[in-house]
Amino acid sequence: MNWPDRRVLDLFGIEAPIIQAPMANFSTPAMAIAVAEAGGLGSLACASLTAEQMRADLIAIRAQTARPLNVNFFCHQPTPPDEIREAAWRKKLAPYYDAFGIARDTQVPSVARQPFDGAACDIVEELNPAVVSFHFGLPSAPLLARVRATGAKIISSATTVAEARWLEERGCDAVIAMGAEAGGHRGSFLATEMTQQVGTFALVPQVVDAVHVPVIAAGGIADARGIVAALALGASAVQIGTAYMYSPEAKVSAPHRAALSAVTDDGTAMTNLFTGRPARGIVNRLMREMGPMSDAPPAFPRAGGALAPLKLQAEANGSGDFSTLWAGQAARLSKALPARKLTLLLAKEALAQIAH
Amino acid sequence: MNWPDRRVLDLFGIEAPIIQAPMANFSTPAMAIAVAEAGGLGSLACASLTAEQMRADLIAIRAQTARPLNVNFFCHQPTPPDEIREAAWRKKLAPYYDAFGIARDTQVPSVARQPFDGAACDIVEELNPAVVSFHFGLPSAPLLARVRATGAKIISSATTVAEARWLEERGCDAVIAMGAEAGGHRGSFLATEMTQQVGTFALVPQVVDAVHVPVIAAGGIADARGIVAALALGASAVQIGTAYMYSPEAKVSAPHRAALSAVTDDGTAMTNLFTGRPARGIVNRLMREMGPMSDAPPAFPRAGGALAPLKLQAEANGSGDFSTLWAGQAARLSKALPARKLTLLLAKEALAQIAH
Repeated sequence: MNWPDRRVLDLFGIEAPIIQAPMANFSTPAMAIAVAEAGGLGSLACASLTAEQMRADLIAIRAQTARPLNVNFFCHQPTPPDEIREAAWRKKLAPYYDAFGIARDTQVPSVARQPFDGAACDIVEELNPAVVSFHFGLPSAPLLARVRATGAKIISSATTVAEARWLEERGCDAVIAMGAEAGGHRGSFLATEMTQQVGTFALVPQVVDAVHVPVIAAGGIADARGIVAALALGASAVQIGTAYMYSPEAKVSAPHRAALSAVTDDGTAMTNLFTGRPARGIVNRLMREMGPMSDAPPAFPRAGGALAPLKLQAEANGSGDFSTLWAGQAARLSKALPARKLTLLLAKEALAQIAH
Repeated sequence: MNWPDRRVLDLFGIEAPIIQAPMANFSTPAMAIAVAEAGGLGSLACASLTAEQMRADLIAIRAQTARPLNVNFFCHQPTPPDEIREAAWRKKLAPYYDAFGIARDTQVPSVARQPFDGAACDIVEELNPAVVSFHFGLPSAPLLARVRATGAKIISSATTVAEARWLEERGCDAVIAMGAEAGGHRGSFLATEMTQQVGTFALVPQVVDAVHVPVIAAGGIADARGIVAALALGASAVQIGTAYMYSPEAKVSAPHRAALSAVTDDGTAMTNLFTGRPARGIVNRLMREMGPMSDAPPAFPRAGGALAPLKLQAEANGSGDFSTLWAGQAARLSKALPARKLTLLLAKEALAQIAH
């Protein structure tokens, strides 16, 4: 039995229509290598890497696999610091500081989430990954043209039909239809009303009908049934994130791992408290007490700065009360397997279900 | 080609695994007859019918079809009127009253949504429908025992795994897994956090894994792709609502029909403004200006009372600004066909896709 739709397979040069979601801070080069070696598309998340780290990771991956690789970048519009909002945010968090015995004027780290820039583009040109994916839209036209000139296939996430059309118009080779079930940051860049975000089941076929390029379904897919269902909805491939968070290759804190192993279907919510942008995570104390959505946090990615001391101290006590516990709504379906085994199993089981 | 899973077909004695969602106020006996004659399960929504209307409708349906029928009831816990909350709600709406030139002390109708009771149960016993479905949980044990004694199959909606388990434990013959994409009132009865409601794609397989009875997928299903995908996720049948709102058999106001024909994938939101319980509808002025979710409206179903004069006047001007414009997130996928044709087409296309 073969995959019924070869468009994404041929586009990227992979064997199974399974893309490992980039997952900045949680995925690793080892994960990307494992997925690539299993025939899927491994991804390196660069959003929180310096150019040097990115280069080193890419070279390390290249040393281990010759398979196609996806390199992922955020491309948000950076906003200047807003002293007033930052101060208001710190004031709002002050009771927690007090309770932990942390001085209110503690120096907090500035959170860096560098959008894709010339330096990153230099490395793409140098190391030439097969696929470059973006989150939060696309970079500026000149940067995008440079990426395209490398021959890399370009993809990005859409959370609405309008975003999918926007991406296709700007030359994306495929579009990720990211349903509301997905863990981590929403890819939204035109849509602003998080109460109107669309579930995978409704989003995928509407995106398929709206664009000509192949569609990659994301959100709520963690087992073979999900892969087969996504293909039935018209997707050509799937992107899977949360299921890989259970693999030994994932870089997951102890409290996050504990939360992932106890999560229920309705245990997550979309929140902007941790970074200033909406993302789906397992509901914890901060989300319950201040959100999950709020007008209080400063713009992405600065919200995390003032939370850092709280997170550090809570995690030292084994608590994820102030941590980003990113997870999608299908987390519970995940099997804790090494990334290579998981990829092979998902592909095998999906093919068996299709043949049935 | 036959349907791969016969459990719901055999349980209800139907030919196609398609259940027309009840949709109180919008569905009609003609719709139920048309779906039943096409081999699906037609449903009569009784939540806003008097016992006499219900009896007359059931007898009228019986005169036209001998096929199995589903009779649907709400089973919320009625709450006593709360004068203070009602007054606060009217005060909040007063600026709209003023703008429309409606006197603030205008007598408003009391909204009746009778939960399933002894009188309704008498009619079930008398007319003996093949299936009785409930929304918002289940009625009291004695009433449920009376329904069971008629031989009717009993089903209800779950919006979480916990709700599905609760329904199975109380003897439901099948469980509707109602994803967050679904239009109209959420069936939730244990879950209270609407920010944590689960999308169809993630909910269905988790419910399938959690219960032994067959699962009926609902939410975001409006075409054959959705039926095939739901079956791939492990569902034995689907419940389709919004797609039938486009049929000539639906009782839809002109503004609602206009909104349905213009709706986009991300044009709906969950709101409790219209009835006091969360329901998904097309975003309109009231939802934009006061919600979509709010602490202001009185308990279900009373919120609608004070809105009635606004709705009446707006609709007279062709506007749906204050109307319930219920719709699910896959509305756009609907084909405006008579209910019989739609049911036959959905079944035929789904079977063709499965055989492919």
